[in-house]
Order: sequence, then structure tokens, then C-alpha cells
Amino acid sequence: MGSAAAADVVIPACAAVGIAFALWQWFLVSRVKMSAYAAPGNGGHHGGPVFRMEDDEEDVGMGGAGDRDEEEEETAGDGTVAVARCAEIQSAISVGANSFLFTQYKYLAAFTVVFAVVIFLFLGSVHRFSTDSRPCQYTSGRTCKPALANAVFSSVAFLLGAATSVVSGYLGMRIATYANGRTTLEARRGVGAAFATAFRSGAVMGFLLASLGLLVLYITIKVFGLYYGDDWESLYESITGYGLGGSSMALFGRVGGGIYTKAADVGADLVGKVERNIPEDDPRNPAVIADNVGDNVGDIAGMGSDLFGSYAESTCAALFVASISSFGADHNFAAVAYPLLISSAGLLVCLVTTLFATDLFKVKTVRGVAPALKLQLIISTVLMTVAALVVSLAALPAKFTMFDFGEAKQVKNWHLFLCVAIGLWAGLAIGFTTEYFTSNAYSPVRDVADSCRTGAATNVIFGLALGYKSVIVPVFAIAVSIYVGFTLASIYGIAVAALGMLSTVATGLAIDAYGPISDNAGGIAEMAGMSRRIRQRTDALDAAGNTTAAIGKGFAIGSAALVSLALFGAFVSRAGVEDVNVLNPKVFVGLLVGAMLPYWFSAMTMKSVGSAALKMVEEVRRQFITIPGLMEGRAAPDYARCVRISTDASLKEMMPPGALVLLAPLVAGTFFGVSTLAGLLAGALVSGVQIAISASNSGGAWDNAKKYIEAGASDHAKSLGPKGSDAHKAAVIGDTIGDPLKDTSGPSLNILIKLMAVESLVFAPFFAAHGGLIFK
Amino acid sequence: MGSAAAADVVIPACAAVGIAFALWQWFLVSRVKMSAYAAPGNGGHHGGPVFRMEDDEEDVGMGGAGDRDEEEEETAGDGTVAVARCAEIQSAISVGANSFLFTQYKYLAAFTVVFAVVIFLFLGSVHRFSTDSRPCQYTSGRTCKPALANAVFSSVAFLLGAATSVVSGYLGMRIATYANGRTTLEARRGVGAAFATAFRSGAVMGFLLASLGLLVLYITIKVFGLYYGDDWESLYESITGYGLGGSSMALFGRVGGGIYTKAADVGADLVGKVERNIPEDDPRNPAVIADNVGDNVGDIAGMGSDLFGSYAESTCAALFVASISSFGADHNFAAVAYPLLISSAGLLVCLVTTLFATDLFKVKTVRGVAPALKLQLIISTVLMTVAALVVSLAALPAKFTMFDFGEAKQVKNWHLFLCVAIGLWAGLAIGFTTEYFTSNAYSPVRDVADSCRTGAATNVIFGLALGYKSVIVPVFAIAVSIYVGFTLASIYGIAVAALGMLSTVATGLAIDAYGPISDNAGGIAEMAGMSRRIRQRTDALDAAGNTTAAIGKGFAIGSAALVSLALFGAFVSRAGVEDVNVLNPKVFVGLLVGAMLPYWFSAMTMKSVGSAALKMVEEVRRQFITIPGLMEGRAAPDYARCVRISTDASLKEMMPPGALVLLAPLVAGTFFGVSTLAGLLAGALVSGVQIAISASNSGGAWDNAKKYIEAGASDHAKSLGPKGSDAHKAAVIGDTIGDPLKDTSGPSLNILIKLMAVESLVFAPFFAAHGGLIFK
Repeated sequence: MGSAAAADVVIPACAAVGIAFALWQWFLVSRVKMSAYAAPGNGGHHGGPVFRMEDDEEDVGMGGAGDRDEEEEETAGDGTVAVARCAEIQSAISVGANSFLFTQYKYLAAFTVVFAVVIFLFLGSVHRFSTDSRPCQYTSGRTCKPALANAVFSSVAFLLGAATSVVSGYLGMRIATYANGRTTLEARRGVGAAFATAFRSGAVMGFLLASLGLLVLYITIKVFGLYYGDDWESLYESITGYGLGGSSMALFGRVGGGIYTKAADVGADLVGKVERNIPEDDPRNPAVIADNVGDNVGDIAGMGSDLFGSYAESTCAALFVASISSFGADHNFAAVAYPLLISSAGLLVCLVTTLFATDLFKVKTVRGVAPALKLQLIISTVLMTVAALVVSLAALPAKFTMFDFGEAKQVKNWHLFLCVAIGLWAGLAIGFTTEYFTSNAYSPVRDVADSCRTGAATNVIFGLALGYKSVIVPVFAIAVSIYVGFTLASIYGIAVAALGMLSTVATGLAIDAYGPISDNAGGIAEMAGMSRRIRQRTDALDAAGNTTAAIGKGFAIGSAALVSLALFGAFVSRAGVEDVNVLNPKVFVGLLVGAMLPYWFSAMTMKSVGSAALKMVEEVRRQFITIPGLMEGRAAPDYARCVRISTDASLKEMMPPGALVLLAPLVAGTFFGVSTLAGLLAGALVSGVQIAISASNSGGAWDNAKKYIEAGASDHAKSLGPKGSDAHKAAVIGDTIGDPLKDTSGPSLNILIKLMAVESLVFAPFFAAHGGLIFK
Repeated sequence: MGSAAAADVVIPACAAVGIAFALWQWFLVSRVKMSAYAAPGNGGHHGGPVFRMEDDEEDVGMGGAGDRDEEEEETAGDGTVAVARCAEIQSAISVGANSFLFTQYKYLAAFTVVFAVVIFLFLGSVHRFSTDSRPCQYTSGRTCKPALANAVFSSVAFLLGAATSVVSGYLGMRIATYANGRTTLEARRGVGAAFATAFRSGAVMGFLLASLGLLVLYITIKVFGLYYGDDWESLYESITGYGLGGSSMALFGRVGGGIYTKAADVGADLVGKVERNIPEDDPRNPAVIADNVGDNVGDIAGMGSDLFGSYAESTCAALFVASISSFGADHNFAAVAYPLLISSAGLLVCLVTTLFATDLFKVKTVRGVAPALKLQLIISTVLMTVAALVVSLAALPAKFTMFDFGEAKQVKNWHLFLCVAIGLWAGLAIGFTTEYFTSNAYSPVRDVADSCRTGAATNVIFGLALGYKSVIVPVFAIAVSIYVGFTLASIYGIAVAALGMLSTVATGLAIDAYGPISDNAGGIAEMAGMSRRIRQRTDALDAAGNTTAAIGKGFAIGSAALVSLALFGAFVSRAGVEDVNVLNPKVFVGLLVGAMLPYWFSAMTMKSVGSAALKMVEEVRRQFITIPGLMEGRAAPDYARCVRISTDASLKEMMPPGALVLLAPLVAGTFFGVSTLAGLLAGALVSGVQIAISASNSGGAWDNAKKYIEAGASDHAKSLGPKGSDAHKAAVIGDTIGDPLKDTSGPSLNILIKLMAVESLVFAPFFAAHGGLIFK
């Protein structure tokens, strides 16, 4: 087995290369000096604003709107004073994000420990906590390790997955808050320099996450293997806990972060833009710091955890299915490790792809930003197709056997290549469709902008219709991937198609993280009172970032659909369900209720954002009324109270939706049995995909329709504007409505469908043994 | 078989009683004299306004805003001049509705003939147009009539269903336009008198439709039976064409009518209420007649066709399933006709229920309106439960055999009673949930109203969240009905549960039609310049009508879900699909794409309303600008142009969504085979139910939140109002967004899921024989 040894070299080596590349990019970013007292690599940890945030002390200068004057501002304003201000603001954002995440992690730690015990108890009870070995489920005639061992190792894997997810989100946040002010400062040198800084910082996050996920998973497998020996069936079964851990943290990260950021954003916009008619990110707005903190804890940390979760789950699903195929029976590690090898190759491909953006074809003008990002997607997809072919031919035997729910299925190595490739290209198709529907370079968003002529109501009607329509192509792309994957290699085919879509996750994360970093950079420029020229540059970066954020969400939901289906297949296989017949009333009832869950979940998260935003609005209004001189810029607002409102709302409101997602499969499986649970998962999957895509595209379209009017780059756009016109006001209302749709409920639905599936898979042995108390 | 003879007496007798009751109610309504020259029973057919509408002639007095003065108006204004004006306005509405429906029916006639030919060709080709008899599919060892005969009779049944549906919708419109002005005039005598007139008119429609549907179906069965003899299998198979005909007309009625009414309504509101700040239904608004015509062609004719379709389909599904059970094999007509007997009993129950509202407990005050309507639901459900028990024990053998996809299942007569009862009570549960979420007497709508404080964006966010949340209870109610129905009597159990929910359709339609009639009555009062007292009364009737409209939609979608599942089961059985296994990639792909179809469909219909509304807005603005003296009431607007815009938009825009719904099953079945089609139907069903319920409840809630603020009946409501306040403006935006959701896309989705299922059932023999060109 020389190829097994090769895999043992290649996987950790690629992970190491990825981490080294991330550190190198970080070093490049750190060369942008913030100020004398903000040393690179420190992330701006210094006292003043910290205490100000925590203790409501007197403002120490960061608000500073008093000495700004719209008319007088000149490039001169971008000098050392501005640098110092940027550093302070960056620091305030960083401190706020840090403090929120630590508070959140305290809650999550408690949850994680409790849930690990639940996993242990449920899985341990399968064979009544017996320490005896048991006959294997798939490899007949052999004995496998006791169920109790699986209970222990699944719990441990769960903890590891949760820890890695939290670390991923946290690192992402640190990098983003380290990079945003630097991007602002680089904007003084030009769009190209600012773009490079923002994009490099995104790459740091992308490569760190992808490498870390791969490495931890690889080490876990190796360490667990010391106990399990050649009992691969049980080994990879317990590894699935890793995916569950990753996804459950991602759920709370997305929901909590999403509520945080949108409560602040909606609250800030409703009073600032609509009532007071002051620009976005104006330092006079008390919610402005909370808004910027939110970008980092929601869009960065939440999204990082989310994509890490998808990645972990698709790998776990593929590994589990492979372990019960002929790969597992033959103990062919190189073949079983195929998913890890694909991810390893993906890291190298993304590395090369990144160089195209940062070194080979540098962005020089504002117009070059969007094409550069788009090119990243295309290059990584093309290169990865080649890499996948190489890996498939090198790592896999020419022919092998997969199990299609009991039936043996002959698969050839190039079949698996096709599965990876179809996933990859389906991802690209989803990405381009999303771009078409959310970028204001195309007619859909322009039609939405045009409908603002007749007010907010038509804007909302058109935006909703656009979101619904944008579902069509992605669903067909996913459907084709599923059909091809399933036909060629059964459930394994779908799992590797999901992996294919996620194999370029490092690049995906880089362009995805680029968005909020640019958004923050613009915010900092505004707050630091830098010149209009700088803000025009950061605005251009941000507009491109809006579309890439939508593309990132498209990838996330597309891969989530495939991952969930793979997990679903693994669950059905593990739970010993013969078929999932819709004509069985237990299955159909599950299907119907499952299709309802995304609505229930969205109702909770949207209401949470709405209620938190109402509180925020009241606070912001209160400050504008009670703080003398605030509107004139002579006094500083009390940012800390707004931060606290977002924090409290987010922590309180993330619990009920989290409980819904985590309890639904447990209740269905325990009381109604595996058939109903299987129906529930299928229903949630097919219904959740649609709402998630439509919600995130409606929101993206409204956002860019507003930006289209504001930018006024064409005669049509000019006829709708300028800022403050009736059409623009209508556009702002649409944008505000889209906020919770695109940044809270929409992206959380990915996690809902994945998490329910992976949880069912982990608990499958319990449900199979003791499930169905009410009807078997 | 004495009981068969009894069935042959009972069914036509009940239908006759229903028709007689409807005519009696009509007579009571007709005693309200409109004016000297509008004789009762004539529906106000007289010339002046007709020509004005068609030829843009000079206004002959109906606009009449010039001599109105808000300050001076007195009860004296409700005298003979007002009566004459009411008559004229009613006539204009009636003429507009008539002319639209006739134009629409011309298109539909062409479609119907073409589609009948398609049915003939597809079904005829099953056995290559052979005139030979063939072995029966279910009753082994017997010969059945040739497939060609089925092709002919299915086409004929389709035409009959289509014709009955059109007649139902048309009669509803005639009654409504006959009653609206009379309700206005009765409002002079008090709320009680006006309520009685509006409710009686609704009852005319309810009883006529329910009786007509029953009678035509019964006669068709008897006439077809002359040819088929004891080949009941083929007889009831061809009868399913009746359901398809009914539903396809309903689709175009709902979509076309929905676009018509909402284009006018949204257009009228956007300029009238938002820009010009004139009240709803103000005669100066050029779109006001189109808006009122729309209520009659959309909410009345469309809804009538819709519920007739549900009723026809559930009966057809139940008859078809019964025909292949032991009932059919034993040729027990009383048992096979059980669905018809349940409907017959329902007519009598509804008759008694109606008397409670009109004669036993008369409504005397404004406060009594909503409880009276609610009481109707409760009384009809309680009485129908008793009636269903009687029918079940009398018509059914004590024990019989149903076929559960091949397996025989022993069923007892009281099992079927339970199925009917669970459907009935699930309907009531859905009705009450809908009331809770859409009536401004409860906290959900009040919360939505409260969120208007912070503007339109939070209003929309809260309203969407409310709609999502309102899905939970109805879905569980439907799920329980399905589980109980399926477990007790397989697919037949679900079909009769659907029938149970629809058995009180006459009452349901009565309270449903009551809404638009009251709405129009209010509009006429406003346009005729009647006193504020009258308008307060009609407004109170209208507010209750808004909630009942939402309840009606809840019933429609709940019953549609059950009907579709019953049809789906019948289709699977007829197409010979063994099981619909989600793990089969063909099925899963169907499921995923099916779940997407309601979004595609909604995107089309919402965009249509939006575009048509934009055109309407431009026209209304144009008239306000170019017609001198219009705003001051010195000149009359050009109503006819607005009517034409709605008409053209509606006729043009109803085609693409109609084509989507009709072609999807044909394409899936022909090219991808019955497994994919089965998945498609299941996916569309579970996904469509959620959007339909959430869309109609969000819309209902926004509408009543606005009314809550306008009425200002509590301190809370007063703090948000009055009309014209910022909160009220935000509420108007929500209401406008809700219009296409609740009256166009939402209710059309019921028909989408039903129609796709019944179409699949009708074409099942073709798909089974020749389907799956791409993959079998």
C-alpha cells in the first residue's frame, strides 16, 4: 500500500502549505502600518476605546464628527490624523467583535458540553452501555468495537468539530478586523492597493480555515485509528460527530451573528438614513459601531463557521459512505481518503488562483474589481477540474464497488472524477446565476431599481418576484448534479459532488470575506472623516463585494443541498431504512412538516431581527433627542449602549431557532421513528433550498438596486436618484427589508438543512434501536 | 340494492333543495329595490354607463364628486339621488365585470377545445386508437371498454367540468354585482339589514355552486354509465376529466382575475392614497371602477371556480379510488356514491346553518358581525359531524376492502366517518388559526401594526414573519388528517377527509363571497357620496369580510393539500408506480424541482401584478395631471382606460403561469417518466402549501393592520393613526405589498398543486404506456 503512505504525506503537506500561504498573505497585509502605536499582528488591542465601550466613559476622540465639514474636506484630511482615527475605529470594532464573540462562546461552551453528554447518553444506550464488541453492520462475519466506544468517540469528535468551527470563526473575525482599517489606508494609494489588501486578508481567512479543517480532521482520523485499528466502519461512523460539532456552532454563529448585525444595521438605517437623512456609517449615528462590529461577527465569523461546517460535513459524509464501500472492506486508505485528497488538491489550486488576483493580473481601476473576482471563480474551477482528474486517476483503483442501499454498484475511477467535476461546474453555474440576479450590471436589478419610481411597495413586489425567479437555475443545477452523482456512484457520488463544489472553498471564502472587509473599510473611511475620493474607492470595492457575498451564499446553499442529501443517504443507510416511500403516511407527514420547518425557523429569526431593530431604533432616536449637539457633531453618541442592545438580543434570540433545529430531528426520530425522520429531512431540504436562495437573492438585489440609484452611473440611474429622492427612499426601504432575509434567515437555512441531516446521521444508531416510541 | 335506489333519490333531491334555497335567498335579496328603472333580477343592465365605459363618452353623472362636500354631507345625501347613483355605479361595475369575463371566456374556450383534443390524442394513443376491448387493470379476468372510449369520455368530462366551472364563476359574479349596491342601500336601514343582504347573496352563490357541481357530476356519471355498464373502473377513470376541466378553468380564473384586480387595486392605491391622499374608492380616482370590477372577477368569480375545482377534484379522486375498491368490484352504488352522499348531506347542513345567521340569531350591531360569521363555521362543523355519521352508517357496508397500493386493507364504515370528521375539524382548526393571525382583534396583527411606528421596512419584516409563523398549525392539522386518513383507509381516507373539509363548502363560499360584496358595497357608498354613517357601517362589514376571506383561503389551501394528495395517490395507483422512493434519484430530482415550481409560478404572477400596476399608476397619474379639474371633482376621470389596462394585462399575463402549470406534468411525465413526475407532484405539494398559506396570511395581516390603524378603536390604535400619519403610510405600503401575495399568487398556488395532480391522473395511462422518453 504505497499509495496509502503517499496519502499520509500529501494531505498534511498540503495543509501545511495552505497554512504557510495564509501566514505569508497575513505578513503582506501587516506591512500596511496603521499608526505608531498599532503594531502589525496585534490587531489593534489597546485600551482607550475598550474602556469607553465597556464603561460608557467620555468619548476619547473617535467620534470626532465635530471637526468634519462636508464642504471643506480635502485630501489633506487623509493624513496622520486620519491614520490615527482609523486605528482607533478599527480597534473599537475589533474590541466590540472580540467581546461579543467571547460572550457568545461562553454560552456555546455550555451548550457544547451538554450536547456532548446527550450524544454520549443516546449512543451509549444503543447497546445499554455494554463494553462488549458487536457484529459489524456492513461487513458481515466480523466484529466491530462496542457501541459505547462509538458514543465516546462521537462525543469527542463533536467537541473537536465544535472547537475547530469556533476557532475558524474567531480567526476570520480577527483577520477581518485587522484588515479593514488597513484597506481604508491603502485606498489612499489607489483602488488596486486597497483591493489587494482586502483580497489578501480574505485569502488569509480562506486558507487558514480550509487547511485547519483538513488538518484537524486528518489528525482525528489517525488518532481515532489507533484505537479502532481496522474497524473502519465504526471509525468513520464516530468521525461524523466532527461534522455535527462544526455545524451546530455554525448555526449559532450564523443566527446569533446574523441577528446582531442586522439589528444594528436596520436600526442604524431606519433612524440615520430615513429619519435624519445622514449618510451610512456616519459617526454621529449611535448604532454605527454596532453595525460595523456586526459585519465581522455575522458576515465573517458566521460565514466562516458555516462554510467550515459544510466542508466538514461533506467530508464526513463521503468518508462514512466510502468506509462501507469496497474501499473500506479492502482497507484501501488512499481510496477512502479520496475526499481529503480532493480537498488537499483544492488548496494548491486555490493558492495558484489567488496569485492571479494579487500578483499576475493586478487590479488597477474601479472597473477591474468585479471582473477580477469573477475570474477567480473561473480560474479555480478550470484548474480544479484538471486537479480532480489527476487525483481520481492516482488515488483510486480503476474499478470498485459502492453500495446502493444494499445493492452492489460497480464504479470506475473516472466516474468519481465526473461527480467532482459536475459539482464544481454546478457551483460555477449557481455563482453566475446569482451574479446575474444580484449585480446591478444586469437588467433584473435595474428593473427593481426602476420599480422604485412608484414607491416602496412595487420595489418590494419586484424584489420578491426576482428572488423567486432566481431559484430556477440553481435548482436545476443542483438537480443535475444529484442525478449524475447518484446514477454514477450512488450516495457517494453526491457526497463527492458536494466536495467538488467545496473544493475551491479557500478561494470562495477569500472573495466572500473580501466583501465585509471592504464594507468595513468604507465605514471606517466615513467615520474617520477621510476625503470623498477615498470613500468613492471603498464604495466601489464594497459594491463588488455585495455581489460576491451573494455568490458566496449561492455556493453555500448549493453545497449545503448536496451535502445534506449525502448525509441523508448515509443516515438512511445507517438507520437501516429500506426505502423512503412518499406513499407511506409516516414519510409523507414527515415530508410535509419538514417542508414547514424552514418557514417556522425564518419566522423566528426575522421576528428576532425586527424586534431587536425596534429596540435599536428607539435607542438611537433617544440619543438623537437627548444628547445635545449630537446631530451637529458637537457631542459623541453612546455607541456602547447600541452594542449592548445587539449583543443581548442576539444571545437571547439565537436560542429558540437553535432549539428548533436541534430538537426537531431528535423528537421526530425518538417519537415517530426513522421513516418520519427521513421524510422530515427530505422535506426540509427541498423546501429550505428555495427559501434560502430566494431570500438571499432578493436581499442582494434590493441592496444593489439602492447602490445603483446612489451611484447614478447611467442616465437611467440618474433619473431615479439622487440620494434622498423618493425613488431612493423606496430603495432604502427595500434594502432594509432585505437585510434580515439575506444576512440572517436566508444563510441560516443552509445550516438548518445540513445540521438536521448530520444530527440524524450521528443519532441514527439510537433511532434504529430505540426510535419510534409513538409509531414504529 | 335498495340503497342504490335511495342514493339515486337522495342526491338529486338534495341538489334540487340546494338550488331552490339559493333561488329563495335571491328572491329575498331582490326585494331591495335599487331604483325605478333597475328591476330586480335584472342585475342592472341598462345603457348609459355601458357606452360610457366603452366609448369614453362624457360622464353621465356617476362620478359626481363635484357636488360632494366632506363637511356638508348629511343623511339627507342618502336619498333618491344616492339610490340612483348606486344603481348606476353598480351597473357600471356589473358591465365591466361582464365584459371582462366574456373576453376571458373567449380565450378560455379556445384553450379548452385545444386541450380537449390533446387529452383525446394522448389517451387515445395509449392503445394506438384501437377500438378493441382490453383486460381490466384492477379487476383481473374481466374485460374493460377500449382505451379509445376513455379518451373520448375523458375529453367530454373535461369539457363538462370546464363549462360548469365557468358557469359557477359567472353566476357568482352576477350575484355579487347584483348584491353590492343593494347592500349599500340596506346599510341605510342598519348594519343588520346590510349584513343580511350581503350574507344572503353569498349564500346564493354558495348553494348554487355546490348544488350545481353535485348535480352535473351525478348526471354525468349516470349518462356515462349508459355506455360503460358495469365497467366502473373505466367509468370513474374518465370521470376524472371533470376535475381537470374544473381546475384548469379555475387556474385561469384565479390568475387572470387576480392580476386584474390587484393591478387595479395597487395602481389605485399607489396614486390615490399615497400620492394624492384621497380616500379609497374615491370617485375622482380613475382606477376605482377597475378596482371594484376586479373584486368581482378575481375574488368572486376566481374563488368560485377555485372552490368548485377543489370540490370536483376531491369527489373525482374519491370516486376513482372507490371504484377500484371492493365497492367497485361488488358494484355497490350507494357505497361508491358515498362522496356524493356526503356532499348532499353537506348541502342540507349548510342550509340549516344559514338560517342561524339570517333568521335565528340576527346580527344587530357592528360587533355582532364577526362572531356571527365565526358561529357559521362552528355550527356547520358540528352539524356536519352528525350528518357524516348518519351517512356513513346508512350508505356503507359495515366492512369492506380498500386497496393500499396492491395490498388489501379491511376498513369499517365508522373508519370512514372518522376520516370525514378529521377533515372537517382540521378545516375548522385551520380557519381559527387563520382568524388568529389575520384579525386585528388579536396580538399578531396588532404587533404588525405597532411595527409601523418605525416605518414600512419593519412592517414588512414583521408581516413576512407572521405569514411564515402562521403556517405551523395548519400544516400540523393537515398532517394529522393525512396520517389518520391514510392509516384508516389508505388513499380513500385522504380523499374523504378532503371531502369532509369541503362538505360545508356552501357555507364556506357564502361567508367568503360576503367579503368582496361588502367591500364593493363600501366602494359604492363612497362613490355615490353617501353619508359617513353609511360608510362606517359598510366598513365594519368589510373588516369582518377581510378576515373571512383569509379563512376562506385557509380552507381552500387545506382542502387543496388533501385533494392533491388523494389525486397523487390515485395517479400513482393508476400509473402502476410501485413506490415513490425518495432515494431514487429520479424521484428526488422531481421532488426538488417540484418544490421549486411554486416559486417560479409566484415569480411570474407577482411580476405580472407589479408590471400591470406600474402601467396603471402611470395612467392614473397622467389623468390627474392632464384632466383639468379632476382633483377638485369638477371633471370625471376616464375609467374605461384603466379598465382596459387591467383587462389587457390580465389576459396577456395569465398565459405563461398557466402554461407552466399545465406543461410541467406533461413534460415530466412524457420525458422523465412517472417516478420523476411523482416526485414533482409531492415536491410541489409540500412546498406550495407553505407559500400559499404564508402569502395569504401575510397579506391579510397587513390589510387588517392598516384597517386597525384607520379605525383607531383603541388607545394603541389611536397612537398609531390617524389616516395620513407616518405609521399609517407605512401600513399602506405593507397592504399594497400584500395585495398580490394574498389575492394573486397565494390563492393560485392551491390550484397549481391540485391541477398538476389531477392532470397527472388523467394522463396517467399515457405516461404509464409511453412516458419516460429520456429516462424510463
